[in-house]
Amino acid sequence: MLSVVLIGAGNVASHLFNAFKKSESIAISQWFNRSLDAITPYKNEVEITDDLTALKEADIYILAVSDDSIADVSDALPFNNRLVAHTSGSVSIHQLSKKLKRGVFYPLQTFTKGAELDFREVPICIECLEKENLQTLKSLSEGLGCKFYKINTEQRQTLHLSAVYVNNFVNQLYRIAHEISDAKNINFDILKPLIMETARKVQEMSPYMAQTGPAKRNDKKTIKRHLKQIENEEHKVIYELLTNSIKKTHGQR
Amino acid sequence: MLSVVLIGAGNVASHLFNAFKKSESIAISQWFNRSLDAITPYKNEVEITDDLTALKEADIYILAVSDDSIADVSDALPFNNRLVAHTSGSVSIHQLSKKLKRGVFYPLQTFTKGAELDFREVPICIECLEKENLQTLKSLSEGLGCKFYKINTEQRQTLHLSAVYVNNFVNQLYRIAHEISDAKNINFDILKPLIMETARKVQEMSPYMAQTGPAKRNDKKTIKRHLKQIENEEHKVIYELLTNSIKKTHGQR
Repeated sequence: MLSVVLIGAGNVASHLFNAFKKSESIAISQWFNRSLDAITPYKNEVEITDDLTALKEADIYILAVSDDSIADVSDALPFNNRLVAHTSGSVSIHQLSKKLKRGVFYPLQTFTKGAELDFREVPICIECLEKENLQTLKSLSEGLGCKFYKINTEQRQTLHLSAVYVNNFVNQLYRIAHEISDAKNINFDILKPLIMETARKVQEMSPYMAQTGPAKRNDKKTIKRHLKQIENEEHKVIYELLTNSIKKTHGQR
Repeated sequence: MLSVVLIGAGNVASHLFNAFKKSESIAISQWFNRSLDAITPYKNEVEITDDLTALKEADIYILAVSDDSIADVSDALPFNNRLVAHTSGSVSIHQLSKKLKRGVFYPLQTFTKGAELDFREVPICIECLEKENLQTLKSLSEGLGCKFYKINTEQRQTLHLSAVYVNNFVNQLYRIAHEISDAKNINFDILKPLIMETARKVQEMSPYMAQTGPAKRNDKKTIKRHLKQIENEEHKVIYELLTNSIKKTHGQR
């Protein structure tokens, strides 16, 4: 049994709490938050505290706090030489206090407050400075049923950047399509199966192989007609930029 | 039973053939292609022909040919007043020959040669000029188990444009993330669950509501660090443009 103390009460912490609860090989010893309000609803399920000096001993402390607080909270921990892992995609492992055994446990997924998510589908990026702590991070991932990947800080920051492209930017393209179709009274539902299939295709083949459409074919007639159709100047600039990017990728310019 | 003659042998035609075959309320009377080679493998499953004058009578003729051929092929059909529907997202219904009862049967999905697809998930955009033909187009959609939507030519062309954003452009963002992560020896598999979840989220909530990330929060520190990380000038321009687009959508500028 792996004992865990959870620190923080944001989105990632809440999802981790629920996932830890479900695991048969993980025991949540304690849940800390600087304000008890956020975790009080869970007081019958787990021991809660807002007092750092009352922290129990555990195999691993999961620091699921905001990026800017990681250094300070880790400094404030009232012990040395215990394994503490933060959950951030962008913060260096070296921002954790040197007095600790430092680790990273970064679940790469988009967490929506209140929305159910099968945590077993979440890849965990793990990192540590001393080899001896690797097994604990692996066991924690496995205890959640997750795939884990050994990822160093530079790689993790690159993943965090890549995630902005495949999540935030992709979602903004969905938004633009929503705006374009709304303007002609078209039900956005019609585009939903295409959105799913586009995501599904790259689970099995590379995005390079999956590409189709007028830009890849360099179908000038269709591109010209589309540009004429677009009423919003910003949508037009995005159309041109991504069309050129596809052309370049596929050797059309 | 609805009798159908299928004309053309491209990607859409092949997928339609397989879907028609599975339906209990649709009978494929004949499959025409100007060259027999493409459809000869199916000769034991359906009557095939390369002779327009040999076309049988049917409730509906599905013209699944390239956009540029629709007008010519419809002109060349050796009959009048029968229902002929093309399958294009961008061609006006008026490009079909006036001698025919004209319709559109546009399945909005990305079709990959050889890849299996559950056709029941494909929304069909239907259009016709005479109300009397609407029922046939509806029955054909229902025979495939598909949802259908009455969509006029202008709306269909707008959907075709929107599909470029949610399919081709989204896929190019996947490609860029692939390039960025490859450069640091990161396994692209790590991003796949996030890609799926991002698509899944907008099945249930609007893209506006689903947005998260540094641009939406106007997290200048993270945006600045990301821009510093990006090594490719084109990737940087796309990052800036889509970040500004998100900011604008969410009132951050």
